[in-house]
Amino acid sequence: MAENKPVNVAVVGATGAVGEKIIEILENRDFPINELKLLSSKRSAGKKVLFNNQELIVEEAKPDSFDHVDIALFSAGGSVSKQLAPEAVKRGAVVVDNTSAYRMADDVPLVVPEVNVDDLQSHNGIIANPNCSTIQMVAALKPIQEAFGLSRVIVSTYQAVSGAGNEANDELAEQTRQYLNGEDMTAALLPVKGDENHYPIAFNALPQIDVFQENGYTFEEMKMINESKKILHQQDLAIAATCVRLPFFTSHAESVYIDVEKDGLTVEDIWKVLREADSVVLQDDPGTQTYPTPLSSSNQEDVFVGRVRKDLDDPKGFHLWVVSDNLIKGAALNTIQIAQRLVENKWL
Amino acid sequence: MAENKPVNVAVVGATGAVGEKIIEILENRDFPINELKLLSSKRSAGKKVLFNNQELIVEEAKPDSFDHVDIALFSAGGSVSKQLAPEAVKRGAVVVDNTSAYRMADDVPLVVPEVNVDDLQSHNGIIANPNCSTIQMVAALKPIQEAFGLSRVIVSTYQAVSGAGNEANDELAEQTRQYLNGEDMTAALLPVKGDENHYPIAFNALPQIDVFQENGYTFEEMKMINESKKILHQQDLAIAATCVRLPFFTSHAESVYIDVEKDGLTVEDIWKVLREADSVVLQDDPGTQTYPTPLSSSNQEDVFVGRVRKDLDDPKGFHLWVVSDNLIKGAALNTIQIAQRLVENKWL
Repeated sequence: MAENKPVNVAVVGATGAVGEKIIEILENRDFPINELKLLSSKRSAGKKVLFNNQELIVEEAKPDSFDHVDIALFSAGGSVSKQLAPEAVKRGAVVVDNTSAYRMADDVPLVVPEVNVDDLQSHNGIIANPNCSTIQMVAALKPIQEAFGLSRVIVSTYQAVSGAGNEANDELAEQTRQYLNGEDMTAALLPVKGDENHYPIAFNALPQIDVFQENGYTFEEMKMINESKKILHQQDLAIAATCVRLPFFTSHAESVYIDVEKDGLTVEDIWKVLREADSVVLQDDPGTQTYPTPLSSSNQEDVFVGRVRKDLDDPKGFHLWVVSDNLIKGAALNTIQIAQRLVENKWL
Repeated sequence: MAENKPVNVAVVGATGAVGEKIIEILENRDFPINELKLLSSKRSAGKKVLFNNQELIVEEAKPDSFDHVDIALFSAGGSVSKQLAPEAVKRGAVVVDNTSAYRMADDVPLVVPEVNVDDLQSHNGIIANPNCSTIQMVAALKPIQEAFGLSRVIVSTYQAVSGAGNEANDELAEQTRQYLNGEDMTAALLPVKGDENHYPIAFNALPQIDVFQENGYTFEEMKMINESKKILHQQDLAIAATCVRLPFFTSHAESVYIDVEKDGLTVEDIWKVLREADSVVLQDDPGTQTYPTPLSSSNQEDVFVGRVRKDLDDPKGFHLWVVSDNLIKGAALNTIQIAQRLVENKWL
């Protein structure tokens, strides 16, 4: 990227779990930054962050914060994006938004660069970064869809608490200590910060991520369903999801059942297209107990796939186990990869 | 059961996780016991156990231990069952075996009393107790199968470490302490005691329960598949499983997708048959965030079902979330319920 003109970048939500990762990855990837502006809520403003050995002070995000910003990376919750992303666009910035605020809007590209980079070209100032659990799944499914067609997806997720932010990490750690000390666990956050009831996540599993919708599915489940269809450009894809929060800090795992269109495929055929896919790493050898886990996939950039099995009844059915770091490829890294493609292709 | 003649009962594996639960439940249920004999490996023999305020000494299990025993409840691993169950039968006992040693044998009934109690009548001395993850699933599926027919099951499990015994509980607790203290985690047991590699379970998910089979599925997955067909008396049932071990101590959860035979059903139709089913408790109200979790289901006798949703694409498809205590209904309680039915029906 050396030939690209350095750009002014703003990170909104700089002190959150994803914001911190974005800053870390921007530093490590040598992104062509002219000026980096760190923005947050009023409450977190004033914090100091080290970037490339330079101390930056986090400022409160306001409409004027986006003057002279080329790319604004938003990860501060949907309401902040709804309020400030249009202000950033009005001032000439391109927004890459990590919230669900704009994902399903017709005029907003929803992009995983390995899957649908060309959708970036039609942006109108805002590009949406998909939900973490969606990104890793479509990254694994795209090469299969392309090679063999895809007609059905049934996914059950195993999701890390960090998807609910740094506070959720603290809650898991604290409840774990309480449980091991024989104390009552205090639950104040999960499953959903703004919902009525809170249940312990330590040594437990909560089959609710985000709020319930009219149809009995949670918003997280509907995100996976609707976003996957949009990213894979396949509105007729039959897809269902059950999303479950589990007591680990990082990386989401997914048990994915698929029906392909093509007949007569073997596990080796699926392995072959996954091996050749960008950002996908196959870790699949039952003979040596090789498969990805949340711990083995944490702090890694790729999407790891294992446990590929042919269904025993449906000749077009396969099972996969897909794991990736929810804060990296599931959020911060994908956001930065979108920004990079915008810069490289001069699509700003 | 007051009218039934008290029987002599032996518990093999009395010091293990399931054996301990069996003794606890035998005491609480007022099972008509004349004499209780506690048996174990040579290593654990000599331990003292309180039963109905009486101190019993655990003895080493040997062929002669089964003289004058009417019912022998085995939970000491498959090799012990293979060696000693025939010896017990030879001496006139009826064996209820908690291991996988005899489950798929044609002349051995595999029984969940609420599902297929009549299969007990054809026993030849040995009755098999199904795998924990199978029991809770078929308990929830049987009323649906009976009312509406069942053609397809795809299950992803969320299984507690206690399924791998008391040692696995200790390993999870110890690794959790190590992780929170910033120490390296020591993994010596999970995912499978006798397998080559061991991985940490604390703050992780392991997509391997029991050893891998030739076809890429684990033995646990094949147990769920084959046992469900046998118990539900439906060899043509299309059924697939992905089994995952998770960092909680007790109760397995299962994300179950089903296709029913009947057209036009609603969530209310599924609710109705589940509400009327023995040993099944419906906990399903998105409006009040009501659904079962491993913690809420632990130390309970029933199978809890929530998150019932109609599939958004397949008019015959439904999703369920099934949770039960893996040591109680999943093991000890079901074993004792089998023994009770044998006594009540004079099928010994």
